[in-house]
This record gives sequence, structure tokens and C-alpha cells, in this order.
Amino acid sequence: MKFLDEKILEDGQVVQGNIVKVDSFLNHQVDVGVLKRMAEDSKEYFKDTEINKILTIESSGISIAAVFAMVYNVPFVFAKKSSSLNLDKDKYVTMVKSFTYKTEYPVAVSKRFLDENDKVLIVDDFLAEGNAAYGLIDLCRQAGAEVVGINIAIEKAFQNGGKNLRADGYKLYSQSIIDRFEDGQIIFR
Amino acid sequence: MKFLDEKILEDGQVVQGNIVKVDSFLNHQVDVGVLKRMAEDSKEYFKDTEINKILTIESSGISIAAVFAMVYNVPFVFAKKSSSLNLDKDKYVTMVKSFTYKTEYPVAVSKRFLDENDKVLIVDDFLAEGNAAYGLIDLCRQAGAEVVGINIAIEKAFQNGGKNLRADGYKLYSQSIIDRFEDGQIIFR
Repeated sequence: MKFLDEKILEDGQVVQGNIVKVDSFLNHQVDVGVLKRMAEDSKEYFKDTEINKILTIESSGISIAAVFAMVYNVPFVFAKKSSSLNLDKDKYVTMVKSFTYKTEYPVAVSKRFLDENDKVLIVDDFLAEGNAAYGLIDLCRQAGAEVVGINIAIEKAFQNGGKNLRADGYKLYSQSIIDRFEDGQIIFR
Repeated sequence: MKFLDEKILEDGQVVQGNIVKVDSFLNHQVDVGVLKRMAEDSKEYFKDTEINKILTIESSGISIAAVFAMVYNVPFVFAKKSSSLNLDKDKYVTMVKSFTYKTEYPVAVSKRFLDENDKVLIVDDFLAEGNAAYGLIDLCRQAGAEVVGINIAIEKAFQNGGKNLRADGYKLYSQSIIDRFEDGQIIFR
């Protein structure tokens, strides 16, 4: 069993039968020891891939990106959720759908921090339908940057994001993959 | 001159005569080498202070908190901005004024992650009027946690936050203090 699977069983909570809460170590209180171990595991997985920038989206991806950036020894950038669709000439902007809230919101990166020299590892905490990941991919496409890998902490394999990203040819590494829930228990893939 | 002052002169930008942009290394693209150096400097400053938790507020404090948590070897918690004032029994909630937007917004921490055993170092990127810092202090007060120190990257000494926090007896360490701007140049204290 993967170490993140173990950590989720130990400290995660299943609520309402099919939602996994990891706010005690990943996205509210944060155990940076766990993040460091995730980063080292990721670096081993991507050891043959040239990576010179890490890209994530605010807010809950930022902790992961910060620790990964230390271990990979590269800068990171977090795309910002804009409250208004400000078509700033100095920014790349994309729309990201929120599965939870059934809305769309604009996400932006300054053109100064993403360009055709960047070999980007996208990181995030959860992968469900893949909306955030595809938004970040679109920002890279606009900038001419290359997405060389995608590292997710927890993939929900019963939603379509992982399947679609793999079908589109992205090198996706999910450090824990939840296949399904049975009687409130997590079944990992 | 302090190293963060030098970094700001080197890579920061003064816009509109009196706003300092540090988005190339602190709050959009992030240079974790700079954050690590800040964390080590902070740990030296607070070497006689017992700290067992770091507390910040999303989003731009998260990077700093993550790297500080690694260097201090403690967990960190980020208070979440709620879009609605949900008076959840399981959360401490406080209102924070936004100087920029002239509004107030609720900020919350789960009761599970802040309690009377916590000796808290509050960290954030900027200190202006101190609204975010006082909000985090109020969350600690509600939880019975002790605020043993406050570490700020950049204090704007021409606003009142630093003065007020020091007058209230908090052990405040600002790693760069901007005294004023003259002809678009930063004058550090």
C-alpha cells in the first residue's frame, strides 16, 4: 500500500458516505512532513523528466507546490482566482468550472511568470473532473510552456479527470487513487 | 541592510509611487530559496520562544507558512476566507476588514486545529493596518491558544499595524520594514 493511502486511512475522515476529508494534514492544518515525503516520492517518479517550474492554483495547492519546489529546487507559480474577469493584457486567463458550486470562475497567471522556456509540473491536492488541471494546462498552452507532468495527491478515480488526462497523453502521477467507497470505507486502486 | 530589503530592491517593483510589488518572488511566483532564508532568520530571532504551531491566512501567507513549518518542524494551519458567514459550531470565526476593498469578510479555523495547548507563531506576507493579524489573534483568543510571536515579511511602517501590535505587547518581527517612499524609491527603516 502506498504511504499516502495509509496516511488517509489513519487521519482522513469519510463524510456523507463518499467525501474524504484530509483537512488534518493536507488542506487546512498541514503536516509538512507528509508533503516532504510526497515531494520526494514525486521526484523519484519524475526522475527522467526535466522540470524547471511548478504550477498550481490557489489556495489548497499552494502548500504542496511550496514543499515540492523546495525538493525539486525550482520556483513555483500559483494561478490566482480572479473575482472579476479582468482581461488584463499582462495576464493569461482561463475559465475553470467548479464541480461543487456549478459555476465558472476566471483563473489567471501573469505573463511574466510563464513562458516558452518553462517545463512545467502541475501539482494539486485533488483530481476529480480535472477542471482545475485543464485550466492550468490551458494557461501553459497560451504561454507556450510545456506541461511535462501532473502530480496529484488524491485522485478520485470514480470521476473522469484522471481518465481524460491519461487519454490526452499527459504523464499523470496520482499519489493516492480512490477507486470507490463501500459502506463508508475507502477502497484504493 | 537586511537580506530581504536587498531582495526587494533587486526584484521588487514600485508602482503608482507607493505600492511595492513582490510578485516575482513572494506572492505569485515564489522563490522558495528566499522563503527558506527568511524562515532560518525567523527561527534565529525566535530561538528563545517556544513555538508548536504556525498560523496564517489564505492565500498569500500559505507559501511562507509552509516553508516556515518545515524549518521550525511544526504543523501549520491556514485560516480560510469564507464566502458566507456560516456560524458553524465546529469553527472559530472572526471578521477581517479589507483595507484595499473597504469591506469585511469572515475568516475561520476549525476548532480541531487550534486549542489551548498551541503556542502560535502568526506569519503573513504584508503588515499594513494589521487587520489580518488582529483577525488571527482573535481566532487564537477564542481557542485559548497563545500568540507567542508574529512574523511578517514586509511591514509598511507608514500604516498603523506594526505600531499597534507592538503597543499591545506582541513580539513582532518584520523582516523588512518600509518606512516611506520618496520619488518612487523605497526608504527602509
